[in-house]
Amino acid sequence: MRAEVISVGTELLLGQIVDTNAAYLSRLLAELGIDLHNRSTVGDNFGRIVDAVRLALSRADLVITTGGLGPTEDDLTKEAAAEALGVEVVTDEDSARRIREFFAARGVQMPERSLKQALRPKDGRVLPNEVGTAPGAIFEKDGKTVITLPGPPAECIAMVDHAVAPYLREKTGGRGIIKSKVLRIAGLGESAVEERVRDLFGGRNPTVAPLAKAGEVHLRITAKAADPAEADRLTADVEAKLRERLGDLIYGVDDETLEHVVVHRLIELGLKLALAESCTGGLLSDRVTNVPGSSNTFLGGIVAYSNEAKTKFLGVPAGLIESRGAVSHEVAKAMASGARAATGADIGIGITGIAGPGGGTPAKPVGLVYIGLSTDGGESSHEYRFAGSRRDIKERGAQAALVLLRRQVEGVTGRGTGVGRG
Amino acid sequence: MRAEVISVGTELLLGQIVDTNAAYLSRLLAELGIDLHNRSTVGDNFGRIVDAVRLALSRADLVITTGGLGPTEDDLTKEAAAEALGVEVVTDEDSARRIREFFAARGVQMPERSLKQALRPKDGRVLPNEVGTAPGAIFEKDGKTVITLPGPPAECIAMVDHAVAPYLREKTGGRGIIKSKVLRIAGLGESAVEERVRDLFGGRNPTVAPLAKAGEVHLRITAKAADPAEADRLTADVEAKLRERLGDLIYGVDDETLEHVVVHRLIELGLKLALAESCTGGLLSDRVTNVPGSSNTFLGGIVAYSNEAKTKFLGVPAGLIESRGAVSHEVAKAMASGARAATGADIGIGITGIAGPGGGTPAKPVGLVYIGLSTDGGESSHEYRFAGSRRDIKERGAQAALVLLRRQVEGVTGRGTGVGRG
Repeated sequence: MRAEVISVGTELLLGQIVDTNAAYLSRLLAELGIDLHNRSTVGDNFGRIVDAVRLALSRADLVITTGGLGPTEDDLTKEAAAEALGVEVVTDEDSARRIREFFAARGVQMPERSLKQALRPKDGRVLPNEVGTAPGAIFEKDGKTVITLPGPPAECIAMVDHAVAPYLREKTGGRGIIKSKVLRIAGLGESAVEERVRDLFGGRNPTVAPLAKAGEVHLRITAKAADPAEADRLTADVEAKLRERLGDLIYGVDDETLEHVVVHRLIELGLKLALAESCTGGLLSDRVTNVPGSSNTFLGGIVAYSNEAKTKFLGVPAGLIESRGAVSHEVAKAMASGARAATGADIGIGITGIAGPGGGTPAKPVGLVYIGLSTDGGESSHEYRFAGSRRDIKERGAQAALVLLRRQVEGVTGRGTGVGRG
Repeated sequence: MRAEVISVGTELLLGQIVDTNAAYLSRLLAELGIDLHNRSTVGDNFGRIVDAVRLALSRADLVITTGGLGPTEDDLTKEAAAEALGVEVVTDEDSARRIREFFAARGVQMPERSLKQALRPKDGRVLPNEVGTAPGAIFEKDGKTVITLPGPPAECIAMVDHAVAPYLREKTGGRGIIKSKVLRIAGLGESAVEERVRDLFGGRNPTVAPLAKAGEVHLRITAKAADPAEADRLTADVEAKLRERLGDLIYGVDDETLEHVVVHRLIELGLKLALAESCTGGLLSDRVTNVPGSSNTFLGGIVAYSNEAKTKFLGVPAGLIESRGAVSHEVAKAMASGARAATGADIGIGITGIAGPGGGTPAKPVGLVYIGLSTDGGESSHEYRFAGSRRDIKERGAQAALVLLRRQVEGVTGRGTGVGRG
């Protein structure tokens, strides 16, 4: 089977948004072994959407569109797909009812035009939207298929995962596949990671490709095989080599986040966590609480932005702040221990630093961050010098704290050099 | 002038990377007033790249490609562009020397095939690569132009900024420009915003287009004009109409964030802020502290994830939590007042709710959120029912709190209905 992906939206052509949906769909098609030779992007223009769908149908059996399913006059994808395929659209009563209910549940009057979203191919299938109001649809005619999906990424991804992937999996059952596995590495910089594993990048099947993320490196292993078992065998071989080189620096696989790994380990160990944040401003608490079930380990966080808050909530002596400075090893440790003592947690983290853009001095420049760790075994503090914007420094700080926490709870020793230093 | 952008690379079609280059080029073209109706993506396949360039040349005067300029056998874009245009390529001695020097400076032996990157159109122009080894090129023939750029974003962007933008600016000199302005709206849902201003969406110049973000609506006004002053006049006219309809619901323009507006207003008024977060888990503190200078108003935040933390740090009576439940109007108000009292702030916010996926009951379902506001004028609390994932609910909660805060500090009255309800 051969597919094409068409992204619809003038906002894409104006560069106002980056097209993450197309990448998501591309990954799915690769995993299913469906060839994808062309992707295209068009604006919210009926004639050009029809042309794009027709061209794609001339080269492929399956065309997936994203965008242009909303209630406005500019949303024309379903109508254009029907025109290109030569099929009729009718109002889907079930979708119309859902849309009415969506508004009713929110106590908002439904604009009449919202019902435009309930159009469906006469002989096709409706894909319910679990996140928003615009349903998707599957159009089929003469062995060709067009699937229309909504543009907002959360809606698109939910529909792909719950409806499109199962539909395509059934349609392609038994053919060759492409399977990827991502190894996630934290605590070692990109160049240092590549230094250790570069010779493994040359392979044809599986391939290994690095991708640098904020404070992490991801290595993607991609295998082509007749079936998942063969792909897994090919992947396991190169994965073993990568693990030999990188050891404990690999904290997780695929979509596992560092906070997920840390929170789950804390829960497993029955340990309680408390956080005291200054320069990261709540970002670390935010990441920890993104993990479902984090309330089983996370007792609370203090965003101690002022010196008074550090003293009042965390018991950091005002004299210590005065003598050492709010950004110091001593205050980071006192914050960590203060968070632990105030909540009765087993592990406390304290982060203090200068996120900028103002507030830096030659002795304590923007990007200087101290992270303190407190357990019943004692206190420690680590110094970091991060580069980048205010947001970059917040992100690097929160990431470094999670790396420290993981090392604490996994009993991982610092194998790499320059851990978290950049 | 009409342009098309072609992204070349099998890694794009496998979904291994997101195409940020295409968005960057799209923004540049829009700024220069060059129409972009189609973008496409092809893999590293000579025949398909030739086809894509030919198709683009049949619809446009200017084709910009990214990717496929490297030294490997898979890098074929320059050869394909030459084939599509019917022009010759020759080795550029200057580029060949630079490539040799690049390797020499790094003490690495140059693989012979690296010299493939020095190919240039016989009558065209070479674009030096300041970041990597693969130069770009400009091919011109019969009034058509093809520009080939490298794929790695750092190399592509540097070449666009230093060579392509000046080249195109000169080429379009004196011609029209496209200028955009974004009005940012919070506190009214997308449909309700559209209901008020839909009749203004039909205009051709300037155009007005809505874009829904998490809990916000952005209206983008895009004007085509001979010069910036004319674009500003055209924009001002429709902006005045939009402001008449939406009034104070418009909180900012262009890249101004809601937290930016709120924090700056608080600083102007000399007011101090304290936050108490349960279900949002620190996200609101994180957003507030993303604003440089927020330490001038933000005293601190408590992420009171456990009931004990609510009692200990915020003085919420344990009996109140027991009788009303942690997720209730009363506890939201007590959290807000507790944060204010504990820090000496002028304004306190308390957020409590059920972010899910677990923890919901029929009476208190996932998505139920209470936000309390406390000032020396008294306490209030607002109930919300949000839909979506755990992250969605956190984001909607933080957004609703900022809307409330803005209304408090701007003296804005609730004009819209369904404020923050979805």
